[in-house]
Order: sequence, then structure tokens, then C-alpha cells
Amino acid sequence: MTLAEPLSVIKIGGNVIDHSENLYEFLKDFTELEGYKILVHGGGKAATKLSDDLGIEAKLIEGRRITGIESLRVVTMVYAGLINKNLVAQLQAHHCNAIGLSGADGNLIKAVKRPVKTVDYGFVGDLDENSINFNQIQKLLEADFVPVFSAITHDGKGQLLNTNADTVASAIAIVMAKLYETRLIYCFEKKGVLADITDHTSVIPEINTEKYTALKAEGLINNGMIPKMDNAFSTLHHGVKEVIIGDAKDLKEVKKAGKFGTKLVL
Amino acid sequence: MTLAEPLSVIKIGGNVIDHSENLYEFLKDFTELEGYKILVHGGGKAATKLSDDLGIEAKLIEGRRITGIESLRVVTMVYAGLINKNLVAQLQAHHCNAIGLSGADGNLIKAVKRPVKTVDYGFVGDLDENSINFNQIQKLLEADFVPVFSAITHDGKGQLLNTNADTVASAIAIVMAKLYETRLIYCFEKKGVLADITDHTSVIPEINTEKYTALKAEGLINNGMIPKMDNAFSTLHHGVKEVIIGDAKDLKEVKKAGKFGTKLVL
Repeated sequence: MTLAEPLSVIKIGGNVIDHSENLYEFLKDFTELEGYKILVHGGGKAATKLSDDLGIEAKLIEGRRITGIESLRVVTMVYAGLINKNLVAQLQAHHCNAIGLSGADGNLIKAVKRPVKTVDYGFVGDLDENSINFNQIQKLLEADFVPVFSAITHDGKGQLLNTNADTVASAIAIVMAKLYETRLIYCFEKKGVLADITDHTSVIPEINTEKYTALKAEGLINNGMIPKMDNAFSTLHHGVKEVIIGDAKDLKEVKKAGKFGTKLVL
Repeated sequence: MTLAEPLSVIKIGGNVIDHSENLYEFLKDFTELEGYKILVHGGGKAATKLSDDLGIEAKLIEGRRITGIESLRVVTMVYAGLINKNLVAQLQAHHCNAIGLSGADGNLIKAVKRPVKTVDYGFVGDLDENSINFNQIQKLLEADFVPVFSAITHDGKGQLLNTNADTVASAIAIVMAKLYETRLIYCFEKKGVLADITDHTSVIPEINTEKYTALKAEGLINNGMIPKMDNAFSTLHHGVKEVIIGDAKDLKEVKKAGKFGTKLVL
């Protein structure tokens, strides 16, 4: 059972955040979206720059980033402080009643520090089916706040953790889909899923499960896109109504069928 | 007209934040306080250290700090990010439903960039009688959130500003006093107002306007305390019921008359 008012959960990555002229337009378009909405943002170059300026070396094990105590301080400052509060101030300037949040605030996202098996990823938080405190998020939405989440979470025992922002967005969408007709929109710098990778006008407007299987079999889905799309289909199986992958610049076209990105449906 | 449920607005300074063992106890005592409550926090050494590490020189004009664009980035990262989110995570560990906020969030505190007269203070925000959005703060309190404010504010046009945390605390207390029986508690590292500056057991338990005038006339109030106390009496004239100045370590004694700091009343 879902309520009448639809909810959009929108994720923006570092590329949108790093280009201020695009960001201004994006935040304007976001403000004008109808229905309940939640913004989830990633990092951008500021965290890397601050780490470099402080002489904190990026630690990678098997190509995966390790969040040491110093890196956690950096991402807490940059994601939950600098980026989050600047996004909120700009949204408020557009008269969008944004409220900036980490997962610690209101205990909204409780994560589990990734267990050490062969690799110790440090202060990285993984989410499970109980991580998202949907009652508290609902309270904020129904009090007319627009939640803006950084992907900093906590373990409920006083420790902040660094969580993947795509994961935060999909976990929120899945849980909120119990209450609202929910769509999940990933905004990035590409137009959507392309039929021909060399032609950015070849966006496939809609892909269902059957078509996805066929496209993968033909080798037409870029390898880098497969985990993202698998994850998107998984949210659909968990009750999210649609997932749209598209260019942040085109968000204002989201209401017009076929004008914004690639829509994934069951 | 005030509602039945009392409200405590509590300010902590850098000294409390910088000593983690005291901070743990303080947050526990804060959690156990009855009634509605709001925490306002200052900075501490982390912002100075980050500025030093980044080679940002402190700019002072006539002994007053100037907030340049780089300093604003630092305080936004440290106050609204690092300190605010760590305080919230620790309060949540004590089962206090803290929600970390800047003045931009929910447009809760709209400041005015200090006008340039002889000195340009940079990105410093002053408050006026319309700065505090009490309806929105009330919504959060009545939804059982415990607001935790950093003193980063905004101008409503997308610009973050740095505001004095004592000023934020007193402005919030004055405005919320229209709705709740409000007390304002400044926690610092001294026991209260001392009758004898060399004897820390000589705390004066209560000072009213008359006694304050007499103490000042006798030269018994430390010069550094006068602006703080003048400001405290001003909040009393604006409807705040009592102002208490005391040691963060003693907060748990606040209910016992004469056991916690100096109480200022009209």
C-alpha cells in the first residue's frame, strides 16, 4: 500500500557538484520537481584536494579505497560540512526547504562497519534492510522539509562511517517505497544508457528486464554500467516503481516521456 | 503565553569539545536533562589546526577575527561537519535523538552579512529579531528531534556565514521564549561567577539586576565577564526566564538549587 503523493529520490555525483554553473541549474530544476523529494549527494574533487593538501595518502587495496581515521575526518568535513551545507544554502536561495543530513542525524541511517575479512576497509559503513529509519524520514517529509543527504552514516555507538552514496540512495528508495510511490533518479554526466557508445544521441529511452537480458547477451551494455544497472533492477524488485539514469542537465525534462535519460522498469 | 513544557538552550564552547573525556560525560548529562532542549556549539582547536595545516593565516583587524573565503570553508567543514556530526553521533549513542543543523538547514537562522564600515569582517553573519525561524524549530522539537546547532548561518541568497555561537544561543533562547518557558545555559570551564577570582569555591549562586549593578560598582565583576553578563541580562529582558553560567562538568546538578553555576534572573 502506498500513499498518493509520489516521492523522488535523486542522487547526484561529484561531477555535478564540481561544475557550479550546471549545479545552479540542477538545483533550480530539483526545486521545481513536484511531490516529495530527497537529494543524496556524493563527493567530488574537494575531498581529494583536501586530502592532498593535508598530505593524506589515498590507500587502495585491490583497487578499492580504504577509509582510515584521517580520511574519515576529511570526508566528514567535506561531504557532511562543506558540500552539504553549500547545497542546502543554494536550495534555500531557490526557496526549496532543504535540510542537510548525515545518517547520524535523527539516527536516519545506521550502518554496520564493514567486517574485516581479508581486507580491512577501515571506517566504511555497509547498509542492511534495517538501516534506513523510514519513520523519521517520513516525519521530515511531512513537516515539509526536503532532506539532503551526504553519505556519512553512523554505527549507533558514536562512530561515523563512510558509505557509498549510490547505495544510500537505493537503500532510501527501497525503504520509502513502502510508504510512497517512489522513483529513483541517478543523475550523472551522460545522457543515459546508449545503444551506440560513440553516439550520445542513441539513448535507449526504456529498458525492461527482458530487454536488459537481451542487451547484455548482445554485449551492448558497457561493462562499467552492469553493476549499476543490476543494482537498479534490484531496487525495482524491492518495490521502487522506476529507476531513471540520466544527465543532471536534463532533469527539467523528467516529466516528458523519452526526454530524460533511460528509464528502467520491471 | 508559554506552553507547559520547558525548554533548555545550552551552549558549549571549544574547551568542552576539545576534552573528549569531559565531553562524554557532558553529553550523557545533556541527554538526561528533562524537557525540550537545544544544543549550540562553538569551535575548538580543530578549526585553528586545520587552518594552520592548510597554511591559512588568521587575519585580525583591531584584535577581531576576519572570516575570509578560505576561513569560511574551514569553519563550515569543521563546525558544521566534523564537530557537529561527531556530537550528533555521540548523542545518538546515548539515545538522544539529536539532529545536527546549520542555520541554512530548514532556513532556521537567516543572518545578514555584516556591513562594511571601517572594517570588512568578511563572511560574518549578524542576527536580527527576524533571524530565528521559530516555527521550523518548533516543528523539529515537537517531532521529538533534539536540535544541535553549529554557528554557521546563511543569508538566504546562497551564501553561508560565520556567526558567534554565544549570539546564536541567546537569539534562539529569546525567540523560543515566546513559545516555551526557556532557560539559557552557558557551559564553560569555570564554576560560575566568582566572588573572589582566586577562589573557585566562591561561586555566587544567584545574581539579580540589583545585585549585578552593585557588584559592578564594587569592581567585583571581571572585565571579561561584563559583555557576557550584559548580554545575559538582555535575554532576560526579552523573556528568557533564567540564564545560568556554569561548568560543563556540573551540568547534572542543574536541578539542585545552588549546585550548578551562577543563575542570573531579573
